[in-house]
Parts: sequence; C-alpha cells; structure tokens
Amino acid sequence: MHDQTPCIDFSRCESVYVPLAESIRRLIDLSIRTEAGPAAVAAAKARIDSAADELSERLHPGPVGVRQLPDGQTIAWGNAVVGLRNPVAPPLVIHHEPNGLVWSDFVLGAAYEGPPGNVHGGVCALVLDHVLGATTHRPGRPAYTGTLTLRYRRPTPLGQPLRAEAHVERTEGVKMFAVGHLADADGVTVEAEGIFIHPRQRPG
Amino acid sequence: MHDQTPCIDFSRCESVYVPLAESIRRLIDLSIRTEAGPAAVAAAKARIDSAADELSERLHPGPVGVRQLPDGQTIAWGNAVVGLRNPVAPPLVIHHEPNGLVWSDFVLGAAYEGPPGNVHGGVCALVLDHVLGATTHRPGRPAYTGTLTLRYRRPTPLGQPLRAEAHVERTEGVKMFAVGHLADADGVTVEAEGIFIHPRQRPG
Repeated sequence: MHDQTPCIDFSRCESVYVPLAESIRRLIDLSIRTEAGPAAVAAAKARIDSAADELSERLHPGPVGVRQLPDGQTIAWGNAVVGLRNPVAPPLVIHHEPNGLVWSDFVLGAAYEGPPGNVHGGVCALVLDHVLGATTHRPGRPAYTGTLTLRYRRPTPLGQPLRAEAHVERTEGVKMFAVGHLADADGVTVEAEGIFIHPRQRPG
Repeated sequence: MHDQTPCIDFSRCESVYVPLAESIRRLIDLSIRTEAGPAAVAAAKARIDSAADELSERLHPGPVGVRQLPDGQTIAWGNAVVGLRNPVAPPLVIHHEPNGLVWSDFVLGAAYEGPPGNVHGGVCALVLDHVLGATTHRPGRPAYTGTLTLRYRRPTPLGQPLRAEAHVERTEGVKMFAVGHLADADGVTVEAEGIFIHPRQRPG
C-alpha cells in the first residue's frame, strides 16, 4: 500500500514531485543517447511503464495551470520553460534585478537539438519568448505575447553555458516593448524583441 | 545478461528506441499531472532511476545529430520537434505537398503549457520555426533560420487538434521567405514569417 495523501503543501510538493521530474529529465537525455541493445531497452521500458501506471492512479484531470500558494504567491509547476514538475522544461531559473533586467543562465542538452550539435532555432525562440515575457509580468497580472521577432546571428551550441537576458525598452498603455538576447561564451547568438500585452483585469 | 548488439539498422532502431521514447512521453505528462502520494512517487522514481541506470550502460557521447541511413536518407532522431527518439518532441509528423505546402496536425498536452490551459507562446514559436524551416529544406542541404517573426492573435489551446502549415513565398539567392500559421478548429491563433538561409555547401 502506498501513501495516497494529496500533496497540498508547497515544500512537500517540492520535495516529492521535483525530484521525480529531475529523474525523468535524465531519462529523456538517455532516450536519445542510449546505445543499449533491444533486451536492455525492453527491460528499461517495462520499468518505466510500471512507474507510469503507479503515477496514473491519481491524476489531475488536465494541465496544471498556475497554482496559488497559501501565502498568495503563484507557481507555474507545469510551465514548458520554468515548470519544476515539467521534465520538458530545462527548467530555467529566472532572475529579476532591481533595475528591471531579467536573466537566466543554463545549459541545454541533447533534448533541445536542431542542427547537429546546436540548439534548435525554435528552442531559442521558446527561451527568449519566456525571458522577454518575464520582464513584463506583474504579480497577479501575467502578460501575453503580442509579437515576437528573432534574429539568428549564429548557431547556439548544445552542452555549453548559455545566458538569456532581457529588459523592457518602453511601455505604451497595455503594451510593453521588451528586447533581449541569447548568448554563449563568445557573445550573442540570437537577438529578440517582443511586444507583450497585459489583458484587462478580470472581475473577481 | 542483456543483448548489447548496437542498433545500426533503421527498422530495428525504430522498433527498439521509438517505443521507449513514447513511454517516456507518457511519463512526462504524468510527472506534471500525478496526484499520487509521496510513497507512490518515491517507488515510481526508484523504477525510473533503475531504468536510467540500465540505459546508461552504453551511451552516445553527445547529442545525436542527423544520421545517414544506408539508402542515403537522413533522420534527425533527437530533433526537439520531430525527433522520434526525443521525448521532448511531440513529435510532429511533417507532410510535404507537391505544391510546396508543408503541414502537420497534432495535439499538445500538459507538457507544453504557458498561460493556464494554453500552449506556451514560445512552444508556438518552436513549432512554427520548424514547420516554416521545413518548407526550405532540400535533401542534404538543411536551411538555418535567419529571422522569425510571430504574431499572436489569440491563445492556442492545449489538448485540442492543432494544425501548423507553411509555404515559401519567394526566394532571393540563398534566402528563402516562408510564411505560415498555427490554427485550431476556430481558425488561426499565431501567424509567422521567416527568412531561412541555405549555407554554402561544405566541401566533402
């Protein structure tokens, strides 16, 4: 019998589900890179399917969305870029400086490949959309992407330290204009600019 | 003892590694949505770690890149959008029509979430970068993204049928101008245009 107590406490959720996602991130990388033979792969797959059956016993019916913590803070557990419970997310840790600069340092592995040995151009777009958008978020008021333009200056390498950073250039009513870039140790690889929109507050 | 024969035959690779990636895709979704208690999660994690150890015994040293098949065709096993061995990839199946139209039908689940219930704007960019780029690929001559511009018209829903499509609007030397969009049953959600570049052929 397994403990079936629902996980409603943040620190407990963090200690239970975050390590699970980390284990699955390792598995994703291995899925691409393993050269194990058919029998070893079949044995591993059987264990994975068994683990999945166990995790399926109690399921949230849809995507997780943004959860509010008892202290009023929100957390996007399932977010495709920063979600700590989402193994697809690298996950990026986003830093906000007092002067408005937003930045994140990370390394992208085999799961984010496009051109051989390099980060998929669309993954660069995914990261930059998120980091530019993060410059415009206000507590309880998420911003949505209006337009996003990316200029690819050179390939972005897999397996090497990368930094994404962005700041708001100007604001016009509900529109915020953000600029930023992705860089490796040799400098900028992709430049981005975006217009982000704060939708009107919903009543209630 | 497990069979450790390397997998060099395409159909055998497909039958061995593709089902593994599919099992891991299911696990990714469950990682986000499970409400299993701490003991059940710990048991599942132990099985996952054991599977990972087994898959680690023989590893390709880096990302997989593009592999050439004996018949000269290429396959991007690890690609972040279409890679059949990459659990991060939905994976999209890309169709090429004789008139140049490229399209793909797919559904994105909880792992691709941005705003609650909707596809992350950056994931829309990831998919559109790939589908626009696919209009410009020529056998043995991959195209690289030069610029990409996205206009977000409304949210793109998770869990519902989506279509991405694109075509080349015009070509100028090494530059190809592609346009396309992402749509749900009610019409276009995101529009995209991109400039893709064919690098000069490398000797050899």
